[in-house]
Amino acid sequence: MKTFNVAIMGATGAVGQQMIEQLEKRNFPIKEIVFLASSRSAGQEIEFKGKTYTVQEAVPESFEGIDIALFSAGGSISEKFAPEAVKRGAVVIDNTSAFRMDKEVPLVVPEVNKTDIAEHKGIIANPNCSTIQMVCALQPLKEQFGLNKIVVSTYQAVSGAGINAINELKNQAADFDNAPNAEAKVLPVKSAERHYPIAFNAIPQIDQFTDNGYTYEEMKMINETKKIMHDDTLSVAATCVRLPVVTGHSESVYVELEAAPTVEEVKQAIAAAPGVELMDDPANQVYPMPLMATGLDEVFVGRIRQDLDNPKGFHLWVVADNLVKGAALNSVQIAESMIEQGIV
Amino acid sequence: MKTFNVAIMGATGAVGQQMIEQLEKRNFPIKEIVFLASSRSAGQEIEFKGKTYTVQEAVPESFEGIDIALFSAGGSISEKFAPEAVKRGAVVIDNTSAFRMDKEVPLVVPEVNKTDIAEHKGIIANPNCSTIQMVCALQPLKEQFGLNKIVVSTYQAVSGAGINAINELKNQAADFDNAPNAEAKVLPVKSAERHYPIAFNAIPQIDQFTDNGYTYEEMKMINETKKIMHDDTLSVAATCVRLPVVTGHSESVYVELEAAPTVEEVKQAIAAAPGVELMDDPANQVYPMPLMATGLDEVFVGRIRQDLDNPKGFHLWVVADNLVKGAALNSVQIAESMIEQGIV
Repeated sequence: MKTFNVAIMGATGAVGQQMIEQLEKRNFPIKEIVFLASSRSAGQEIEFKGKTYTVQEAVPESFEGIDIALFSAGGSISEKFAPEAVKRGAVVIDNTSAFRMDKEVPLVVPEVNKTDIAEHKGIIANPNCSTIQMVCALQPLKEQFGLNKIVVSTYQAVSGAGINAINELKNQAADFDNAPNAEAKVLPVKSAERHYPIAFNAIPQIDQFTDNGYTYEEMKMINETKKIMHDDTLSVAATCVRLPVVTGHSESVYVELEAAPTVEEVKQAIAAAPGVELMDDPANQVYPMPLMATGLDEVFVGRIRQDLDNPKGFHLWVVADNLVKGAALNSVQIAESMIEQGIV
Repeated sequence: MKTFNVAIMGATGAVGQQMIEQLEKRNFPIKEIVFLASSRSAGQEIEFKGKTYTVQEAVPESFEGIDIALFSAGGSISEKFAPEAVKRGAVVIDNTSAFRMDKEVPLVVPEVNKTDIAEHKGIIANPNCSTIQMVCALQPLKEQFGLNKIVVSTYQAVSGAGINAINELKNQAADFDNAPNAEAKVLPVKSAERHYPIAFNAIPQIDQFTDNGYTYEEMKMINETKKIMHDDTLSVAATCVRLPVVTGHSESVYVELEAAPTVEEVKQAIAAAPGVELMDDPANQVYPMPLMATGLDEVFVGRIRQDLDNPKGFHLWVVADNLVKGAALNSVQIAESMIEQGIV
């Protein structure tokens, strides 16, 4: 069996840790592995398959001899080091937003568009967490019934904003009576002017605002979905909201299909889709929730209902672990698909 | 000035307490007031305008001589006592769902359809909390641009499920590390078979499920909106979700209008609407959130955006205190409107 030299860039972060766990769990065919990070995190130790590794400070030469480099250390790090890795013969799978909308860079969710991988010129982008789980759930509907319009409202966990956001939520949640006046330094965006408490609150801002009144997170869902699904005419309307949830993004997705299937046909299509698990039994109160999806690989879909006023309209409630399928797992699956397709 | 004999049915509950506060704050023209409850709560004392009152157990005779009775003690109590109050000459303003869809009973949000009050036959219904704030925000758009379709996803606070739900959230939130295994006895529905932790979670179930896969809460939003807005052809698609928020419902509302106004025209319509406050300045991170809306009377609207693929589509983020405008304040405003219109 062919094995590969793998580098993890951003190995000490929340997503980097998940990447390491996925590589180990899935028994990825590794020849040698190297863990990279900024100078701040270099020197830390990481356990992998019973061996201890020291995290090294990333420099361009770190990528000499690397076959596959998984990046998740922020957009500016990707912009700086991904071209250096490619120059040295590595294929970069980048989890940041740096290259996602670049026409030369495939944006891939293997369940949806793995054949796009072949067109890579060194970099393959991993989509935004909230986009990945939505397109996994909608691809089977697109294939079987045609997809005309998506209206999505998200319910997103703080772990997408890093370990500091998790600690902020934890500290605020412990002081119930002080909720409106809780100290806030991280959310909604660390570098933003104003910060708001997240415990016992809902913040309708994820990432900064663009000039058109949408946030970057909302624009990612709109633009990435069209790119992954190869459909510029697909209408996507998105509102992204941060919640006092640690891990697990939920999405209330309303779709207008080209056809008018029965709700049973929609459920069957979801149940048969790869990477997706139907979890939908209202009579027994069975539906997905972020607390139950934490740590799991699947995209869970429930609350499937036909619009009472429009036979082509359907509601879905889509939940997945934003660090697993929303980030680390999808990156590793892209690498596996490359191998399977003989691209690396 | 004419004054009225007023009864509060369910005076010791969360909404009852807010009703008392609103009557006092708004200087409602009261001749005499009587506080009623079940035998379990009878005997408790209530302060009102500097005087101490004892809560009495409700019996049919409690309504002798009463002009206006505000009910908020559960549907079965309303079914039992509202007809008794009407028989004795009172007008009942009922905050439960018992009579809302009854053709003989006006369902009223004064900012939208106060002229319906005149058609009452003794009972006037107060709509569901999540419906009230949505129709307040959408009425000005309906009037100026026509309203074709609503797709709403809610972010609802636990206080809508009573004081036990608030305590459950408080206890669970204090034990961060145990979140997935937290003890749950109240949510999503106290009488339901299964209960789930609400802290650090999102539960896509409010009230019980109906046979069509929708919850009663979702069906309330669908049916009540059509009734209040006098438009059976208005398409309403709703998903209702309970969050770890104490007070303040948020709603991600997508509307398709008949016309295609500019986003500025939509903002102006919202800003000019009664009971509604425009809070929309993304450049300065100004948008409504439940923690800031708690205890306030207004319905706050922000994040107003035009659909990038459809000039008739608009997003709104609508937040209000579910116990104030969503319940107690609206009931008191119905009473004030009755007086203003000379109906009582």
